[in-house]
This record gives sequence, C-alpha cells and structure tokens, in this order.
Amino acid sequence: MSTVLRRARLAVGTKREVVDFISSRDGDRRIARSIVLVNEAHVLALLKAGLVSQNESRRLLSELRRMERVFPEHGIEEDYHLYIEQQLTKRLGPVVGGKIHTGKSRNDQVATAIRMTLRDSLLDLSNNVLSFAETLLKHAAKHVNTFFVGYTHQQPAQPITYGHYLVSIADPLLRDSERILEAYRRVNMSPMGAGAIAGSSYDLDRRMISQLLGFDGLVENSLDGVSGRDFLLESLGVCSLIASDLSRVAQDWILYSSSDVDILELSSEYASTSSIMPQKKNPDPFEIVRARCASVNGNLATATILMHALPSGYNLDFQELTPLVWNSIDTLQSCLSIMTSAVASIRPVQGVSDRYQVKFTVATELANSLARELHAPFRDAYRWVGQAVRISLHDHRTLRDLTRSDWSKIAGRPIEESTYRILQRVGDPASNPGLYRTEGSANPAEVRRMISSRKRRVAESLLKTEKLGSRVRDSTRRTERIR
Amino acid sequence: MSTVLRRARLAVGTKREVVDFISSRDGDRRIARSIVLVNEAHVLALLKAGLVSQNESRRLLSELRRMERVFPEHGIEEDYHLYIEQQLTKRLGPVVGGKIHTGKSRNDQVATAIRMTLRDSLLDLSNNVLSFAETLLKHAAKHVNTFFVGYTHQQPAQPITYGHYLVSIADPLLRDSERILEAYRRVNMSPMGAGAIAGSSYDLDRRMISQLLGFDGLVENSLDGVSGRDFLLESLGVCSLIASDLSRVAQDWILYSSSDVDILELSSEYASTSSIMPQKKNPDPFEIVRARCASVNGNLATATILMHALPSGYNLDFQELTPLVWNSIDTLQSCLSIMTSAVASIRPVQGVSDRYQVKFTVATELANSLARELHAPFRDAYRWVGQAVRISLHDHRTLRDLTRSDWSKIAGRPIEESTYRILQRVGDPASNPGLYRTEGSANPAEVRRMISSRKRRVAESLLKTEKLGSRVRDSTRRTERIR
Amino acid sequence: MSTVLRRARLAVGTKREVVDFISSRDGDRRIARSIVLVNEAHVLALLKAGLVSQNESRRLLSELRRMERVFPEHGIEEDYHLYIEQQLTKRLGPVVGGKIHTGKSRNDQVATAIRMTLRDSLLDLSNNVLSFAETLLKHAAKHVNTFFVGYTHQQPAQPITYGHYLVSIADPLLRDSERILEAYRRVNMSPMGAGAIAGSSYDLDRRMISQLLGFDGLVENSLDGVSGRDFLLESLGVCSLIASDLSRVAQDWILYSSSDVDILELSSEYASTSSIMPQKKNPDPFEIVRARCASVNGNLATATILMHALPSGYNLDFQELTPLVWNSIDTLQSCLSIMTSAVASIRPVQGVSDRYQVKFTVATELANSLARELHAPFRDAYRWVGQAVRISLHDHRTLRDLTRSDWSKIAGRPIEESTYRILQRVGDPASNPGLYRTEGSANPAEVRRMISSRKRRVAESLLKTEKLGSRVRDSTRRTERIR
Amino acid sequence: MSTVLRRARLAVGTKREVVDFISSRDGDRRIARSIVLVNEAHVLALLKAGLVSQNESRRLLSELRRMERVFPEHGIEEDYHLYIEQQLTKRLGPVVGGKIHTGKSRNDQVATAIRMTLRDSLLDLSNNVLSFAETLLKHAAKHVNTFFVGYTHQQPAQPITYGHYLVSIADPLLRDSERILEAYRRVNMSPMGAGAIAGSSYDLDRRMISQLLGFDGLVENSLDGVSGRDFLLESLGVCSLIASDLSRVAQDWILYSSSDVDILELSSEYASTSSIMPQKKNPDPFEIVRARCASVNGNLATATILMHALPSGYNLDFQELTPLVWNSIDTLQSCLSIMTSAVASIRPVQGVSDRYQVKFTVATELANSLARELHAPFRDAYRWVGQAVRISLHDHRTLRDLTRSDWSKIAGRPIEESTYRILQRVGDPASNPGLYRTEGSANPAEVRRMISSRKRRVAESLLKTEKLGSRVRDSTRRTERIR
Repeated sequence: MSTVLRRARLAVGTKREVVDFISSRDGDRRIARSIVLVNEAHVLALLKAGLVSQNESRRLLSELRRMERVFPEHGIEEDYHLYIEQQLTKRLGPVVGGKIHTGKSRNDQVATAIRMTLRDSLLDLSNNVLSFAETLLKHAAKHVNTFFVGYTHQQPAQPITYGHYLVSIADPLLRDSERILEAYRRVNMSPMGAGAIAGSSYDLDRRMISQLLGFDGLVENSLDGVSGRDFLLESLGVCSLIASDLSRVAQDWILYSSSDVDILELSSEYASTSSIMPQKKNPDPFEIVRARCASVNGNLATATILMHALPSGYNLDFQELTPLVWNSIDTLQSCLSIMTSAVASIRPVQGVSDRYQVKFTVATELANSLARELHAPFRDAYRWVGQAVRISLHDHRTLRDLTRSDWSKIAGRPIEESTYRILQRVGDPASNPGLYRTEGSANPAEVRRMISSRKRRVAESLLKTEKLGSRVRDSTRRTERIR
Repeated sequence: MSTVLRRARLAVGTKREVVDFISSRDGDRRIARSIVLVNEAHVLALLKAGLVSQNESRRLLSELRRMERVFPEHGIEEDYHLYIEQQLTKRLGPVVGGKIHTGKSRNDQVATAIRMTLRDSLLDLSNNVLSFAETLLKHAAKHVNTFFVGYTHQQPAQPITYGHYLVSIADPLLRDSERILEAYRRVNMSPMGAGAIAGSSYDLDRRMISQLLGFDGLVENSLDGVSGRDFLLESLGVCSLIASDLSRVAQDWILYSSSDVDILELSSEYASTSSIMPQKKNPDPFEIVRARCASVNGNLATATILMHALPSGYNLDFQELTPLVWNSIDTLQSCLSIMTSAVASIRPVQGVSDRYQVKFTVATELANSLARELHAPFRDAYRWVGQAVRISLHDHRTLRDLTRSDWSKIAGRPIEESTYRILQRVGDPASNPGLYRTEGSANPAEVRRMISSRKRRVAESLLKTEKLGSRVRDSTRRTERIR
Repeated sequence: MSTVLRRARLAVGTKREVVDFISSRDGDRRIARSIVLVNEAHVLALLKAGLVSQNESRRLLSELRRMERVFPEHGIEEDYHLYIEQQLTKRLGPVVGGKIHTGKSRNDQVATAIRMTLRDSLLDLSNNVLSFAETLLKHAAKHVNTFFVGYTHQQPAQPITYGHYLVSIADPLLRDSERILEAYRRVNMSPMGAGAIAGSSYDLDRRMISQLLGFDGLVENSLDGVSGRDFLLESLGVCSLIASDLSRVAQDWILYSSSDVDILELSSEYASTSSIMPQKKNPDPFEIVRARCASVNGNLATATILMHALPSGYNLDFQELTPLVWNSIDTLQSCLSIMTSAVASIRPVQGVSDRYQVKFTVATELANSLARELHAPFRDAYRWVGQAVRISLHDHRTLRDLTRSDWSKIAGRPIEESTYRILQRVGDPASNPGLYRTEGSANPAEVRRMISSRKRRVAESLLKTEKLGSRVRDSTRRTERIR
Repeated sequence: MSTVLRRARLAVGTKREVVDFISSRDGDRRIARSIVLVNEAHVLALLKAGLVSQNESRRLLSELRRMERVFPEHGIEEDYHLYIEQQLTKRLGPVVGGKIHTGKSRNDQVATAIRMTLRDSLLDLSNNVLSFAETLLKHAAKHVNTFFVGYTHQQPAQPITYGHYLVSIADPLLRDSERILEAYRRVNMSPMGAGAIAGSSYDLDRRMISQLLGFDGLVENSLDGVSGRDFLLESLGVCSLIASDLSRVAQDWILYSSSDVDILELSSEYASTSSIMPQKKNPDPFEIVRARCASVNGNLATATILMHALPSGYNLDFQELTPLVWNSIDTLQSCLSIMTSAVASIRPVQGVSDRYQVKFTVATELANSLARELHAPFRDAYRWVGQAVRISLHDHRTLRDLTRSDWSKIAGRPIEESTYRILQRVGDPASNPGLYRTEGSANPAEVRRMISSRKRRVAESLLKTEKLGSRVRDSTRRTERIR
C-alpha cells in the first residue's frame, strides 16, 4: 500500500508479497505519460473550480511537466497513480500535494489514461494496415497481367492474375481500417470526472478536461465511465479480425511458395534453411506471423473469459485486461511490418500457366465456351467438360490434347472447326483472365480499375487517420500552452 | 452428390454416409428463402444478358416463386442450391433448368444468401437491444430519486440512485446498437456475380443483381467475394460484446437480489425454488442468461479457431461457420426478451439506506465535506475518515454515532458545530446523490437529463434501423413486381 | 415451476415464458434413463433406511422401471427430475410419491445422472478412437515399403514410408485413448447422497447407491459433489486434444490429395465436385472434419468462459455446460466414423519418388553419406550439399545429374568413384528409408516392428475399455435383479 | 541466419529484421540448460557409435559443461541451438565443432529440451497444488465445528462448517495433482534421435540418450517425435483446470469477505483500500488471481487456435506455443503462492449463525424433521416449511418465532410439544451440521474423518512427486559422472 494511503482505513499495511502481486507498475509504464497529462488537466479543473490557487496550480503543473519526461525505474509500489501523488507531496509538501486527488479516483483516471494511449495506438495500427494495403496495391499494379491461380478447397480452381489476388488481400485490410476508426470513435471519449463511481460533489468541469485532453466527448454516466471496458473488448475484436486476415495471407504465402505449389518465390532474405536438411528453404517469418495471429485471437478469448459475469463497477480484474490490448496491437504491428516489407521480395514464378493446364483450371471457361458456341444449357456443357477431364486424366493428356472428334463424341454432336479453335484458345490457362467480363473479375482491365479506386480510398483513409491524430495533438499542444 | 452433378468429373457418386456428413441441408433451411431470391435475381441478369429468353425467364421465375414459400422436408441431398436446380430441371426440363447455373456458383450464391439473411437478423437484434435499453430508461425515469448503491471490487462503494444504475446499463446497449449498424454496412454488400472465384465470361450485371436484392453495393473483388468471411467474424464479435454486457447485468441482478445483498427484489415470476430447500428463491433466468452469454462468446472463439490460417478461396469449412452466427443471434434474442420483460418485475428494496450507512458508503462525501469545511487537503480529510471508519468498526458504531469531540480528536483540530451538522447530514447515505455536482453523476437532476437525451437517441436509432429495413423490403418488393 | 413445488415458498408460479427459458427438458433427454436409474437406487436406499416400506419400494420401483423405457414427448415443465416425482405422485398418490425426494436433491441427482451417461459415452469414444488407430495400423502394415514423404514447414523434407506416416497418426490416438480412460476414473464416482449441498440427516447409504449404479467410488465431500464440474471440463479437454489430432490428419489429407502435392489419392466416394468447375475433386469430408474439430475446441473455450469465477455451490449455469460435452463427443464420433472408413479408400500415388528427387528430399542423407565417406564433419558435408542444391536449381538439374567432378569441385577434394556410386544410390529418394538405422525411424523393418507392438497395445486397450463397460453393466444388471 | 548455416542453400543471409522476428532467443532462455544437456547426451551417443573419438567427446563435453552454467546475454541470432554449435566450432575448431550436429536436428533437440524443462515445472506445480491443499486441510482441522454456510445459486442454502467448506476446495486440488502426474507420464518421453523427421542413418542409441537424460521411455515414431505437441496442449489443459478451480476459490473469498455477505474476514495484509473511498477494504489479491486464471484459460484457447489444422511435421508455429505453457505454469505458481499464504489470514466471522436463521438456511432440516416426526411424506413437509417461510417473511419473523399453533395451522394437524421442541432446536442454524448423517456430509465427525484421509493422500502424493523428481535428478547426476 502506498504511503499516501497509510494510516487510514487499514491499520496494517499490505504485505510486500501481496503488493508485488497486485502492483500494476509494469503495466503502467505504457500509460505513464497519459496518466501525467490527466493529472495536469485535473489541476486546471481544480483551478477553475477554485479548489487550488493559481500559485498551487502552477507548482503542481511544473512538477507534473517534469514527470512527463521520465518513467521512474524504482519507487513505484502499488501503481503509478499513487506514485505521482507521493512525489508531489514529497516535493510540494502535504498541503499542496494532498490536494491533487480532490474529486478524482484511480478508477476514472486509469480509464482515461488507457483511452488516451489506446487512441494513439489505434491510429498507428490503422496507418500500418493501410500501408500494407498500399504496398499490395503498388505491386498489384505491376502484375495486372501476371498469370496466377485462384484456389478453392485448397485446390487450383481458375486462372486469375497475381494483381487480382493482391487486390483480394488488400480489400479486407481496407475494411479493417474502417473498423479501427469506428472503434476509435468510441474509444476517444473521456470518463474523467466520473470519480470512483458516482461523480463528485466538487464542481469539476468534465467537458473542459475532456477538451484539454483531446477527447471527442464524454463517457457520461459515471458508473459506465469507470466500469465500461467494452472499448477494450471492441479493440481486441478489431485486432482479432486483422489477425484472421493476416493469418490467411501468411498461410497463402507458405502454401504458394512451397516446392509443391511453387507459384510464388520467396527471396532468401525472407526464408530460413534447416540445420540438418541442406535443401530446405523454409517460410519461417510467415509461420511466425501465422502463429502470432493465433495469440491475437487468443487474447480476445482471454478477455471474454476475464470479463465474463464481472458485476458492474470497477473490478481490479480490469488491470489484467489492458496488457492484452497492448500485446495484440504490438503483435499486429510487428507482423504488418514484416509482411509489408516482404511483399516486394515475393515474386510470382514465371511460366507456370502450362502446369495449370495439367491441373485443368480452364475447365469452367471451356464449359462456358461450349455452352455459348453450341447454344447448350450450361449444365450440359459442364458435364461434357467433366467427362473430358476424366478422359484426359485416364489417358495422361491435357484438355488441349483432345481432338475435335473427341469433343464431338463427348458432346454427342459435331463440333465445328471454329468452335474447336475457340476451345483450343480457351484451353490455354493464360488466356482465361482476359475473357472474364463481370465487374470485379480477374480481367486485367477490371483489376487495373479496382487498383486505382482502392489507391484513392487508401489515400483518403490515411488522410482521415492523420486528421484524427492531429486533432488530438493540437489539443494537447494547446493545453501545454495554457499552463 | 446431387444428380445434377453426376456423370461428370467423378465416375462414382459420393457415398451416402459421406453425403450425410457434408450436407448443409439443415443449415440451408435458415437461408432457403434468400437462396431462392438470389436465383430469381440471377434469372433477371441472365435475361438482360440474353442468356435466357423472356419465356424461359418467366417460367423459371414462376417455379422459383413457388419455392419461396416452402422448404422441402425431404429430397435435399448435398444442399439446397443443387436441389433448386434439380427441381427446375425436373419441372421445366433439362434445357431450361440446365441454364440456371450459367455464370454462377454455389460459392457466390451462398455468400449472398447468408448476407441477406444476416442483414435482417442484425436489424432485429438492433431493435431488441434498443428495446431493452428503452425499457431500462422508462424504469429509470421512475427511479431518479430511488436510493441505490454503486459497487466497486464487489463491495458497496458510494450511494447512487437506481435510475443512475439503470442508465449505466442502458448506455453500453446504445453503443452496441451502433456497432450492429456499422457491421450491417459491411454485411449488406453483394458478392453475387463473383462466380466460383474469378468472375465470369458471361456479361452479368452485378450492380443490377445487387439492387434487385436490396444490397447497398458490391463486394467487388471476386476472390474476396467468395472467400471473405470477415463479415461473419465481425457479426460474431458484435454479438460477443452484447453478451459480455448482458452477462454483467445478469450477474448484477443475481447478486443484488441475493438475500445477502438484498437491494433488489425479483418477483416470483422470475424466480424458482429448490426441490429440497423450501426457503429458496433462485434467480434462475439470470443464471441461464449468464451461462448462455458464455456460449455466445464461445461461438466467437470457435469461429476464430475455424478460420485460423484457412488459405484464400472458398473452403468448405465456411459451412460450419454460419450456424455459429445464427446461434449467437438467437441466443441473444431470447436473453434480451427475458431481460426486457424482467425489468418491470424487479423492484429496488425500500428503506435500505440505513444498511449502507453501516457499510460506510458515505465515507467519500464525508471526506469531501471535511476538506471543504476545514480547508484541508483532500488527502488529510481522507485519512481522518479512514480512521473514523476504523474507530466505528471497533466500537460497533456508525459514522453518524461519532460525536463532535470524536471528530475534533480525529482531525486534530476543533470541529465547529455547523461543520458537525454538515457531517451528520452527509452521514445519511440517502443525502449523498443530491450533493453530486459533476456532469453524468448520480445526482437526480443529472440522471433525469441523461434519461431524456438517451430516449431521443433510442428513438433515432430505432428510426434508423427501421429505415434500413424498409429500404431492403422496398427493393425486394420492386423486384417482385418486375418479374 | 413444476406442480410438485407449488404452493410452497413462491406465491405465484414462474411465468410460462420463463419456465420455457430455463427448462432443461431438451437436455434431459440424453440423461433421462440415468435419472430414472438414480431414482431406483435411491428408493432402495430409502428402503434400507426404513424410510419407505417394502411395499412402497416395490410400487415405486415398478413405476420407475416403466419410465426407463420411454422419454415423454410432452408434459415436462422445468425438468425431468420433477416430472418423475409428479408422475409417481399422480400414479401412486401423494403419500408414496411424496416420499421419493426424501434426502435427495436435483443437485446431487443431476450430477450423478450426467456422470452415468458420460462414462458410457467416454468408453464408446475410446473404442472409436482405438478403432481408427487399428484401421490405420492395418493399412500401415500394407505400406511399410511404400514411398512417402515427411514434411516440415509445409515443405517436402525427407523420404519416409506411408506405413511410417500412418503409425505417426495412430500414436497420438493411443495416447488419447489413455487420456480418456484416466478421465473416466474421475468421472465414474458417485455424488449421490450429497443432497442439495450439505448431505442429509437421513441415514442414506451412499456406498450402496454408488455400487448399485456401477460407480467406482464416491465424490465424498457433499459440496464438492454437487458443485464440482471439473469432470466435465476434463472430458471436454480430452475431446479437444482428440480434435486437434483429427484436424491435423484432415489437413494432411487435404494437402496430400491436392493436385499440387498429389501424393495421396482420394476415392471419388470421399470427394465432391464443384457446381461450376467441372474438373474439381474436392476433399469435402475432410474440410468438414477440420471445421468441426474447431467446434470441439470451441466448446472447451465456451466451458472455461462459463465456469470462470462461478462461486462454490450449485449454479444453474451448469445446465448449459453439459450439452457442450455431448456435442463434443458426438461430433468426434461422427468425424472418427468418416475418417476410419475413409482410410481404406485413400491410396498413396504410385511412382512419385522421382518427383521428390526434384524436390531434393535426399539432401540430408547425401550429406550423411558424404560425411561418412569423406570422414568429414557433418556441418561441412551439409554445406556441400547445400551448394549442390543451389547449383542444381540454377541449372535445372537434379542432384543425381551432378557429375563426380561437380562433387569434387564442391567438396574441394577428389571424390572416389565408389563414393560417387554411393551418392548416386542415395540420390534416389526411394532408397532412403532403408538406410535409416535409429529406433522409431522410417526404416521398413522398424516400421513393421512398431506396427506389431501397437497392434498389441490397441488390443489391450480395447480389452480394458470392454472390462470397464461390463463392470458397469454387471452392476446395473445385478441391481435390476435385486428389486 | 546463424553463421554455421551460411554459404549453403541460401545465397543471401536472412535479413536482420527477419532474424529478429523469427528468433527464439528469448524463449530459449528457459530451456537453455536442457538444450546443453541434450547436446551432452548426444555427444555420448556419437561416441558410442564411433562418430567422435574419446578425445573429441571429452573436449565437446568439457565445453558444453561450461555452457550449462550461463546463458549468454548477447550473440544468439536465430536460436540457442545454433549458438551452441557456433561456440563449439569457434572454440574447438570446425572439425570437432562441425560434428556436433551429426544425426540430430533442431526439431528433435528442441522437443526434447522442452520436455525436460516441462517435467520439472510440472512436478513443482504438483508440489504447490498439494501444498495449497495441505494448508487448507490444516486449517480445516481447526474449523470442523465452525459454523459456515453452503451456497447455491449464489444464495445461502444450508448450514455447513468452515472445515467442510475448506475440504470441498481441497478435493479438486487433489484431483488436479493426479492429472498433473498423469500428464507427466506422457511428457517424460524422449523424442531425441528422431532427427528432422525421419530418424537417421547414423546408428545412434536412442534408448541410451533417453536414459542419460532421465526419461521414462521414447516417443518412438520419429515423425510423431518432432511434430507431436499434444503434450503441451495436455499440460495447458491441466493448467486450465487448476485455473478454473482457483478462480472459483478467489470468487468465493471475494464474495464471502464482502461487507454484504461478511462471513469471512480478510486480514489487512491481504486487502487494499481505495484512493478516494476511505472506508474500502478491497480483496485485491483475489481479484488479480481471478483475472490471471482467465489468462491461463486463454492460453489454452490460444494454443488450440495455433495448433488448429497445422499439418504433420515440424512447423515453426510450435515456437510460439511453448511460452504459453511457461506462462500458464508461472501464473499458477504465483497465484498458488498468494492463496496458500492467505489461508491463515482469513478468519470466519464469529457469531453469524443468527444471521443465517433470518436467511432461512434451516428450512431443509425443518422439513426433514417434520417429515420424520409427523410420518409425513417429505414433499408435504417441504410445502409446510415453504409456507412457513412465506409467513415469516411477511411478518418479519424468523422460523423460530413461529408458535406451536402456527405450525399446527400450517401442517393442518396438531403439533406435539416434543415435536415443537425439536423444531425450535433445528431452527438454530448452528445445530444443523451435527444432524447430518450421510457420508461426506458437513457433520463435524465426518469432516474430521475426511481431513485425516486427505492428509494421508496429500502425503502420499507429495512422496510420489518427490520420487519422480529424484529419479530424474539421479539420471542426470549419473550422466555427469560418466563423462
């Protein structure tokens, strides 16, 4: 128990072992600067309410400003909140120092400081998510014509382009960035002034504190203010969505770069070898990304367990919740960083389209062509191509090896030479993307259009994120001048 | 394997046991109507693209319209998608029926149908969340002056009012309803036309299909369209947040109505008794709510496990993901229904404020008063009250039993009679809420103001939800007329 | 509220909507027979204690025996426990029927019935796990010489045999079966006689009840007896381990049978095709297994959430816990059934060893050979082979295409002809397994030995499981005769 | 990439940023000593196989012995495994150092070292679990007669004794310790010699290595040896069960010590106060225990996510799995330590039995007495007491305030004076435990018997744990002498 709370309710101090066990000192490092800023804003509210004098306010602020800069390596017992009061009391005496906690509680203070730190982290995260998307789009633009394959059921399905694939992994990231900013709106609300749980009989201006600290508004109800942790669960939920997206991309790159699929090539800089198997080129960083994404999802699970059926009001359990959020964000940041820098080093393997002819990825477009040319129902054409695949597999042929008479036999009707020429053309996987006509398809023109529109959206989102950040920084800066 | 896919790629049909194992027939019931509607819109797109004739379109639509009404109890093998094609083929012949699947795939179709069904469920959920909040606010309005206690660390902390408490559980629900509508925006986008994964060489108008089905836009990239399931994870995440909120309220009511705390009274209609302990009045429905909220959170965990590291493209695993969402939403709906109807039957126990004097909930305001009256730093006043509590506990007295001379001794300075009178007044817990002056505090006037503003917000949100719903219904209705 | 509890503590009955919400009637179906048996044993304990007469006992048992056979489709309100009492009261009158609940509670009764039903399910599960292992071993015996490849980092690593692979997936199943039986020992303990929580002032012989019901002992402490649910968490934990094992096998088979890896071939009976891509042969059942395993893991997560911080004593939340266990076991049973019957239909693709020469799986054994022949440190040999791989990749050669002079140049010393011949031999992947000499390696002789020893273990474990089952059945049968 | 693997397969080294990202150096600290010991045993196997000379063996062992003592603060790149080889090479030259990795892989080495470290941690954990149980039993022995209350549905249910309660929380711990030792048996098996995945063509004696390292046997199949991580999932599962048990006890103590229930009193040493509410005495350490138990459960969830559908063979993801196990064990150790030392400081509040008369906890025994005395069916007696409770509540009386004529009226028959005296006696909650007659009930004599038998079981289990530990230590010591 911190000295400032001694000689009050509890005759005997808390045991050293217990203090160490319950102390939040390690966790407080991350929010230390925010805690100091909250104290500064609170001093200004005390001043406005006539609860400290101009002179007292100036002395308190000056000490606090000093504390902004360094986080003490020693001396914190229970937490940084009490440490600050202890220091102010030590340096300014018990009369001035003893006023700092007037009308506030650790309950509202910690919730406020976490929100301040979190809003910055969310904006950083949004930036990095967008930056990964931007990098993907930049490379997509180079590969609108590069042959690639779309997979379903972990099997080659249809020819697409590498650019199309890259857009498909950028798009969920754009949605993720939207989600971050939506969560941000609920995070950036100030609980300060809620006191322990009920508000206070001191006439503290909560709106003023909120503005000084760069918040967009209040978490108004005082009980909600100190006990609501849905903003943390929500942030963990957004992180979990991003993790699911990244784990998919990591899995793709592991599979596509394996010597079995071999459609992407990792540069040696992003691979490792084995200590015993000299041939190995292992996709180590992407396995680590995949695994760490599990821990981001697991953090969310931990949080829902921890919060399950906790009653209203502040519970100390919350203290264990916050580090999960920092851990999830930091993990994502490091994964995003590796993946963003990896994009440039991953190259689609050249000349693979033949291989995917063997794997029959042209079957759908062959069926489409047959249906179109023979004015047949799609389902009939589908069946013919199915049989063609079966025959080819049996004879170790490709679909292009089938003769006109083979096709005639399969379709049960004569195939014109012109139709056969179409089938031969469509039988080349590389030709397929150019045939697609629907919006959002892998057709190169369409992919090019999608890239442009997404680049604009990324730019807009980056701008939006930047604006939110500078609004917060402006408030803080204004506050610093007020003092 | 459905008959329509037989005699194609696979020589031998899938085993009966396997078909039963992989069949989605049970899960398809929920999205059956949406699947039919998607087929109808697709027919109109085929018509526009000249792929079916006016007459064929009319016949297909007429059969489909018939299927809208009933979901077959028998006859579905693998899934409802193939069943529809099978029925159309059976009734309209292979030429017309064989055209229905032109340019579409089960992959885009199922994603579209899930989104259609989910958007309706999300709006229902939003309505019920808001309705619970509305009920809470209605009762809060009756109890702005009713004494209640705010808890921290599962211990009585400070006097509040029952109205204040009810607002504090309504507020997170308002945030939840915001989250639902934000998720809705990403759910109500159409993947239809994405085909199996790559789009199609048929010139199908994806925008038209999207509008016919009441969507707000496209999931453009075809690979993203069939393989993105973040909209389900996001919906499960919102459900999980609501579950955490409800589990807290359930826990509150269980605790507050226990014979130990006894600050709320459940009506017999919402309690059960024991089969052996005749005195028991158990809060059964709230224990069940608490437990079911665990399963809503668990569904999210299941979903993150299932999706972990699944590669891009359609994977059949998705089939097991969707029922988790329906289960979470249905569970929440039933919990919300019970809790909403329970609110009116839960009554704050009268005359409990004395009890909370014994439990020293007035300590904070006593310290505030002392600091104010004696111009002492808050920390000094805090310590005096701490000692007063210690003394009272020792002597089995309440803080109001302390004499003026007791206080003088504790504070180390003479206490004026006027100050003592203030202490005596503040020593009555029931007096405390009226003393609070901060915005969002438990002060009755403040609570009254908060209730009004929230009632407006609820009304606005209900209106917004209603508008989204009618926009969808209008589209569908217009589509029905087009045919 | 059931009629038998009416007109007691609660003036007004529980609302219909609330009864429906809290009713366990659906969940009780699974444990219905066990509930009846518990009632029968309880009657015999009442008889022994002189609390019912011989005649009353006979009449009660005769009615209960009738109820063993059918579970009523209608008429159950809150739960089956009260329904039984209601029926007995209806048929035998309030004097006899009103005695059935003497000294017992739903709390101990439901815990006992769950344990009885669960022990049977665990033995069934153990049987099916062992049966899958047995099938794997039977096929392994056919494939001790069949070329296969071991993977690390999802990349081909070293040549093994298919038999070796199959043993590697059987071994964890043997451990799983051990775990089931260890959990069984803690499940098969009787809480009956614990009453509501404290035991009873009636002199009921708990040991007798336990023996009549086939238990191995008591959950002695009465509070532990009604409130301990660790046996359910433990059972869910064992299920989760099995699920993790099955999900790995499912993933293997999906990957290995893909047209990219193509080292296993699924029969058409265990595959599906696409509705639009006629070439597809999708591993549908294994994707469903993979996904359902996620739900088994998710059930465990749900359970840990639900149980988190529930206080001691019976809580109604437990009611929602039990169905998770049935769901996990049933899901595993259906997955095990599909996978067991699939084993025979999966064939290793012939003639693939050349392909794995291209993929350099012989590199480790080449390095081992070089080290041995040239008396060089392993790390030097490792480096030479690493360079050899690099050169081969560059020149599109295999390691067998390297000439003696290539190797001499790489090793920086002359390579003897005899050594070169060894390298050429080792360069054939098919030769590698025969070279392995360590215990437990993929060497065919070693694999053969492992299969034999495991077959014995499976037989022993099946016998052990059978013995446990018959011990329970014997007790029940003896009990039936006693009546 | 470590220098020892350079100039081999990968032309260019892995990027610094990537190495930092994938490095296991932090995680390796925990298993560092085990890694060195594995290397030592491997050297002895190389010596036996004639792969290193006596002299080389001696030099290698001497260097390794030196490394046992300190873990380097700097210089580790990818991992500690390669660092050791690098150091040996640096100090003994490439010829000797280059032999250390002959026939082994990081894959088998890391699995072996984790198992060695884990077995020790499991035994420590078992000791601490037992030690907590022992402390509980010691205090239970002092409180076999101390009045306490059993709760159901978070409501006072029936009188028990504090000793009975303490036994009820010790019993699950005894089961947990069994589970730990069962998991231990599967953990303490040696995968060493499995190589990368396939075993090795070197004639290494796996049994010898296993014995040198204190293992009880082999994980025989080489693929299973390097890729099986079920031993980690199982250990996490056991930790999760313990966490669920501890979270329940923490929750109990938080509730029971609250000023509402007030049946247990925490010493000030295990409580904290509020920074603003001077009356507060918060159960901080138990809230932290409760919250940390959530993270132990969450670690299990993370692990099941991470392992979901990972294919057979070594995957680098495993690297992220191991720290979860250390974290769970360390968290439990610190929680167990706090809770064990807290037991002595928690005192049951004296003189509370009257309070529980008001809360009607005697109702069940009153019903039992009525049934017995009036030869009435239990259900009738139950109903009478239910009505008595209703009447008492209405009149603000206790059940003991009811007159003989009240009871006669309720029961609808005259109540004898002798019966009434019994009712009055039973109406005192403190009398109830002495009335219980069933085995395992809260009857003081029965509790005394349970304590004795459990003390014996704890002693036996501690002995068993000690024996396992010394068997391992003996092996290691013998090995040290061999060198």
